[in-house]
Amino acid sequence: MADDAEIPPSRTTVGTARMEAFSDGVIAIAITLLVLEVAVRPPGSPLEQFLHGWPTYLAYVVSFMTIGAAWIAHHALTERLERADPVLLRLNLLFLLLIGFLPFPTRIVADSLNEGTDAERVAVVVYGLTLLAIRVAFFAMDAYTRRAHLVSPDLGDSDMQDARRKFRVAVVAYVLGILVGLLVPAVAVAFYFGIALFLVLPLHAIAHARRGTGADDGAS
Amino acid sequence: MADDAEIPPSRTTVGTARMEAFSDGVIAIAITLLVLEVAVRPPGSPLEQFLHGWPTYLAYVVSFMTIGAAWIAHHALTERLERADPVLLRLNLLFLLLIGFLPFPTRIVADSLNEGTDAERVAVVVYGLTLLAIRVAFFAMDAYTRRAHLVSPDLGDSDMQDARRKFRVAVVAYVLGILVGLLVPAVAVAFYFGIALFLVLPLHAIAHARRGTGADDGAS
Amino acid sequence: MADDAEIPPSRTTVGTARMEAFSDGVIAIAITLLVLEVAVRPPGSPLEQFLHGWPTYLAYVVSFMTIGAAWIAHHALTERLERADPVLLRLNLLFLLLIGFLPFPTRIVADSLNEGTDAERVAVVVYGLTLLAIRVAFFAMDAYTRRAHLVSPDLGDSDMQDARRKFRVAVVAYVLGILVGLLVPAVAVAFYFGIALFLVLPLHAIAHARRGTGADDGAS
Amino acid sequence: MADDAEIPPSRTTVGTARMEAFSDGVIAIAITLLVLEVAVRPPGSPLEQFLHGWPTYLAYVVSFMTIGAAWIAHHALTERLERADPVLLRLNLLFLLLIGFLPFPTRIVADSLNEGTDAERVAVVVYGLTLLAIRVAFFAMDAYTRRAHLVSPDLGDSDMQDARRKFRVAVVAYVLGILVGLLVPAVAVAFYFGIALFLVLPLHAIAHARRGTGADDGAS
Repeated sequence: MADDAEIPPSRTTVGTARMEAFSDGVIAIAITLLVLEVAVRPPGSPLEQFLHGWPTYLAYVVSFMTIGAAWIAHHALTERLERADPVLLRLNLLFLLLIGFLPFPTRIVADSLNEGTDAERVAVVVYGLTLLAIRVAFFAMDAYTRRAHLVSPDLGDSDMQDARRKFRVAVVAYVLGILVGLLVPAVAVAFYFGIALFLVLPLHAIAHARRGTGADDGAS
Repeated sequence: MADDAEIPPSRTTVGTARMEAFSDGVIAIAITLLVLEVAVRPPGSPLEQFLHGWPTYLAYVVSFMTIGAAWIAHHALTERLERADPVLLRLNLLFLLLIGFLPFPTRIVADSLNEGTDAERVAVVVYGLTLLAIRVAFFAMDAYTRRAHLVSPDLGDSDMQDARRKFRVAVVAYVLGILVGLLVPAVAVAFYFGIALFLVLPLHAIAHARRGTGADDGAS
Repeated sequence: MADDAEIPPSRTTVGTARMEAFSDGVIAIAITLLVLEVAVRPPGSPLEQFLHGWPTYLAYVVSFMTIGAAWIAHHALTERLERADPVLLRLNLLFLLLIGFLPFPTRIVADSLNEGTDAERVAVVVYGLTLLAIRVAFFAMDAYTRRAHLVSPDLGDSDMQDARRKFRVAVVAYVLGILVGLLVPAVAVAFYFGIALFLVLPLHAIAHARRGTGADDGAS
Repeated sequence: MADDAEIPPSRTTVGTARMEAFSDGVIAIAITLLVLEVAVRPPGSPLEQFLHGWPTYLAYVVSFMTIGAAWIAHHALTERLERADPVLLRLNLLFLLLIGFLPFPTRIVADSLNEGTDAERVAVVVYGLTLLAIRVAFFAMDAYTRRAHLVSPDLGDSDMQDARRKFRVAVVAYVLGILVGLLVPAVAVAFYFGIALFLVLPLHAIAHARRGTGADDGAS
């Protein structure tokens, strides 16, 4: 979307407050709309119906954590932003388009989990591709902000470092998850659950606190 | 989620503005999505149909008040926050995950109220467990912010004191409500209604105004 | 909700920023959820189906304008607020509960308009009562903020004066609309449309601009 | 809506922060609600069902880009606003009413794409008229803010210039699209897709970057 010439820092820029507010709005809505897909399933007594709904609960939790992790990363990115420019606003829109789309693959995963292997296969691949696209779009934003000199010098925000450190691992894991999904779809959901946990947990911060080396956190 | 070592105040922290904005967004959406579950019920003339919808109106009001009370408590908590850290952002996400989930149990309670005791029993227990989990998650956030020294010295905010004072009572009441729900489900809904009223009303402030001792409110 | 003792201005108060943000969120969501009730109606060719959907388009516009007018009045009120207190936060929640509920009566009005007089009668009365309750709740907030000395001296905001001036007229008009609705339901919808227009149009500002006396607007 | 007398700059004005917040909210919700219309279509195997859903994916992307472009333009407009007045708040509401309505035509376009030429014709015309109305309402806001002296001197914001430059082209293109839609409905969707791309891409900024004349961007 951005062309490959070096983009000069002097281009028209705008404040980031409304970009943040709008992004927060879209992410908050997407994450809350997930609940509309949660449902009780027909067969059996009321308790069995409730328990049969487990795929929708699982899908709710996985997607909630994934969007939550994306929000934390987005928050860390814009925290460092000094200004936005027209290209960044569009990259941000692309990121939001994918976030806003996630409730749909979430629904088809939840719908498929009680059906059959074929439906599951389609669903988990579409789901995985969306998750992968979200990560890639975020990476593109992060890369662009640095290339266009829109960010303040790195303040050692641990969530930003977390997001960047986890990027490669997440991409590889999603590709693996998609491949696994083609063979054994049900396993892929457990896989995505694990990735979501990995993305949302502040592993680095926890490790630091464990080792008791909190004092030099800012520079790590 | 946080480990048990004392977490030093010097760890990487971030501003709280966007955490507040995002939380407000999710809570506002969850509270407004409740209306999508409100419905008119089939049997009879138009007026009877409207009147038969009472369980959905009741569920709307109870959940609205519960989320409203949670927002007021969250607002009081973040008002005192000086900064956020990675762990707090995740605890906040967990709290929002539960708030965002509430429209689902609300719907199954409303759906069950005209059906039968079995459906009601499952519904009110799931509902009560969600309400209890919301309170516990909030308590965890409150405890963590104090342990990690993220808050400014207590400014005597009456809503914060209200929230903390009401915590034990609410937990006991929810557990009681769940137990009652196992025996006489319909009574549990009245119970939850009472707890929601108890949580949302500024009892302490009203009592103070009654006694005419408004002058020393800040220190109470 | 507040008792009748004079409430002292020294009671614990909080900033209004998040109350505004949360209210904006709920109002914005309620106004946008209205579109989910807009629908094409079955009988006939695609064009006829689209045209048969007119009651839902009308209901969308009336409710959008009503919530829009409520937002403008709420905005004018909080603009003058210097601080909030626990009671005001609850009154505000009550106001939001009613705003958040409006998509439901909107839907039943839209559903009834092609059915029969009986369904219409129930629908327009429920709709009118909700609109009336919204106005009354807003009036209670306005009255409370003045009684509890939470507002800055009146800055002559024309939208606030507009809201207050229109209050009596609106209440009388809604009561009339409800009575008309009991007799000739279809007319009541036209009535509500007129009230919504009356509420949302800045009649005073337009009149001023007409008379060319814009200079002393602030004091009018 | 505004009368034709010159409106004096001294009229009662208000801050723009909440108008921005409320608008961001409505636009963010409308753009995110689009996903609720995305759906898998019945016939065939799971994969075929997924692939048959393409009209809903296409409609999602077109409407997302259109609302995204509207948000960028709105953002550029309010960035320059020094204050709002009662008339502008209402023009803004009208703009939001149309934005909030867009999920409905989006749904009927998506629903029609697999049906027949008649249904498509109605759908693409309604869709085109809504898109056109959004552009016109935005133009009215832009014109009013300049006429009522509500804006700061033009800071050369490239997105504002972009929006204004693209206005005529977009209006002509939408009218053409509607006419094409009457004859060959399926082509109109491709047309709208093209317009949405044209509106959302920062063509001018990209061209500048290409030519390497970023230095004098502010004055262009």
